[in-house]
Amino acid sequence: MNNFSFQNPTKILFGKDQVANITKEIPANAKVLMLFGGGSIKKNGVYEQVSAALKNYDYIEFGGIPPNPEYSILMDALKIIKEKNIDFLLAVGGGSVIDGTKFLSAAALYKGENAWDILKKGIRTEKGMPFGTVLTLPATGSEMNSGAVVTNKETQEKLGMGGPGLFPQFSVLDPSFVSTIPEKQLANGLTDAFTHVLEQYLTYPIDAKIQDRFAEGILVSLIETAPNLMKNPSDYDTAANFMWSCTMALNGLIQKGVPTDWATHMIGHELTALYGIDHARTLAIIGPSLYQHTFEQKKEKLAQYAERVWDIKTGSLEEKAEKAIEKTVEFFNSLGIDTKLSKYTDDYKDTASFISKRMTERGWTALGENKKITPSDVVKIVEGAY
Amino acid sequence: MNNFSFQNPTKILFGKDQVANITKEIPANAKVLMLFGGGSIKKNGVYEQVSAALKNYDYIEFGGIPPNPEYSILMDALKIIKEKNIDFLLAVGGGSVIDGTKFLSAAALYKGENAWDILKKGIRTEKGMPFGTVLTLPATGSEMNSGAVVTNKETQEKLGMGGPGLFPQFSVLDPSFVSTIPEKQLANGLTDAFTHVLEQYLTYPIDAKIQDRFAEGILVSLIETAPNLMKNPSDYDTAANFMWSCTMALNGLIQKGVPTDWATHMIGHELTALYGIDHARTLAIIGPSLYQHTFEQKKEKLAQYAERVWDIKTGSLEEKAEKAIEKTVEFFNSLGIDTKLSKYTDDYKDTASFISKRMTERGWTALGENKKITPSDVVKIVEGAY
Repeated sequence: MNNFSFQNPTKILFGKDQVANITKEIPANAKVLMLFGGGSIKKNGVYEQVSAALKNYDYIEFGGIPPNPEYSILMDALKIIKEKNIDFLLAVGGGSVIDGTKFLSAAALYKGENAWDILKKGIRTEKGMPFGTVLTLPATGSEMNSGAVVTNKETQEKLGMGGPGLFPQFSVLDPSFVSTIPEKQLANGLTDAFTHVLEQYLTYPIDAKIQDRFAEGILVSLIETAPNLMKNPSDYDTAANFMWSCTMALNGLIQKGVPTDWATHMIGHELTALYGIDHARTLAIIGPSLYQHTFEQKKEKLAQYAERVWDIKTGSLEEKAEKAIEKTVEFFNSLGIDTKLSKYTDDYKDTASFISKRMTERGWTALGENKKITPSDVVKIVEGAY
Repeated sequence: MNNFSFQNPTKILFGKDQVANITKEIPANAKVLMLFGGGSIKKNGVYEQVSAALKNYDYIEFGGIPPNPEYSILMDALKIIKEKNIDFLLAVGGGSVIDGTKFLSAAALYKGENAWDILKKGIRTEKGMPFGTVLTLPATGSEMNSGAVVTNKETQEKLGMGGPGLFPQFSVLDPSFVSTIPEKQLANGLTDAFTHVLEQYLTYPIDAKIQDRFAEGILVSLIETAPNLMKNPSDYDTAANFMWSCTMALNGLIQKGVPTDWATHMIGHELTALYGIDHARTLAIIGPSLYQHTFEQKKEKLAQYAERVWDIKTGSLEEKAEKAIEKTVEFFNSLGIDTKLSKYTDDYKDTASFISKRMTERGWTALGENKKITPSDVVKIVEGAY
């Protein structure tokens, strides 16, 4: 096992009617900015619950944070934070709203001139403005980690940021909010969380038993939960398992002490930046092609994944490993998620070389757990996903 | 899934040579009391490492905290804390030293007259004196939770305490410290951690997938790790898996949202108070008899445990459940741990009725996940363990 340090101070308030308890977590004299997205929270009752909880607070609202939170819109919110002396942020939404709020938490206390530098120069946030979250869309794990991804339309960039100052103070996870999530977004959530686990698990074996068993446990839970979730998202226990699985998939625990990959995410982000394809779907496009391309490096873990997650007990190591990739594709397909780029755009012929060039420009010369995925590998991985 | 709140702010520093990093965690101007046990840390190099790390601090030492940390000895340490204006505690040892340090953390800031009231009256500690730990003996999970158990010889009591103020600020988990642990204590550690998981898992099914998969993952890891650990505790990866398994077994995560039992611990504590039997061994004595006695309540989870942990796929639900109990006894026996009280003392004939009376006196009229274990059940459970 590799050396690691692990700390996750976020307080989770899990279950029905937990929104009311945010009053115990937000200081009574706080000046609160409530942030949300396109307005779905006004249709599903979440807005009413949060407003009721905030009724004794001095608070204002900022809606309209889009999927792939956009820098220029966030800068409008930052202006309000400064003008109105806001000192507590409350994100009500999914990963995009929470990630946007994390950027604001960092930017509000940032001393530099240009807040985009936090992303561009990779400045770690040791201390951010305190914030909490009310999760409406399980997928990204952002509600219990200290990372965020922000998009800049002008520069066509999608960059990550983070630091120990960016853990939410608290996150409300109420599974009853899952019932009104559209099917497409449930499929995205399952795929996103599933791939988060694979990024931290499908590398090479180092006999880290707890990390492997927990990773497999999350994968099995997502697989078992998916069919009923897609049919009946208002089933509370199913929604609860989905929600807690997504959070555990990316709260830092399973990646500690083991190698991690993340190349699927790096390449996937470029597909979103280029074509606006949903984040989760870019992972389903790139992942299987990447596992195929890096088969020799990953085959031991692929075979372990086949055995322990898909219950494939027969065949050679290579056969099991191949079957595991097939099963992964089948799983994504069963959610209505296509794994080929050509299903999303007709304009894909030059994508591979474009992304490869883009990554070289960014100085990302070697990706993956072994730092062996070069720009020319990226060409093959993306072409393999056409 | 039941509603829950979860927060665990302890920072884990895991791996070789992490002791040196405690200087980044203890404030430079802190006045530190370093606490330890019977002196084994002076033989295995841990004392030297900790002393070297503390060399620029103003610190004093307090050794001699015994297994089942004794109230009267801890009161001597409390006197030093007050006299010397200590403001940071550093526990270097196993569960007993850490639990004793937690008591001191609470007692140091306690406003009442009699510190024993913290245990006797069950006073929750919202804020304690800050402390860190350097773990030398994996078993109890105390290094990453906010609970402690303290013994009072005078009153023959062994009582629990806790509260959000009692999480360690940090805990160093260096698997290389495992190499010098005596075989008997390794067996105790495995048994203790194993039973911790069973207390949170062997109840009744409520379809909490993550909690169940994680619990099973820890059990499987302990089973897989045990043989090599007992033979070769200086194997680093084996020690690392053992250490991380024990921490995850009782850091609060797997018990959130599910029913828990803890009757085995409650009854076991009485055996330690009466006969001085090692804590872990009391669990191995009481557990199997308790599973037998509460078979009807627990059989679904026992059968699941049989299938998912022991790979027992054939037979009726009841047959699988029975086999799971047998396998558990075999596992304890394989570690050299006896599961019958008569192997530990000849003086056991009246133990059952004595413990049952003792529990009635304490007002513990109904134990277990269903609050259905009455004092007369306790008689049968303890008799079943003769």
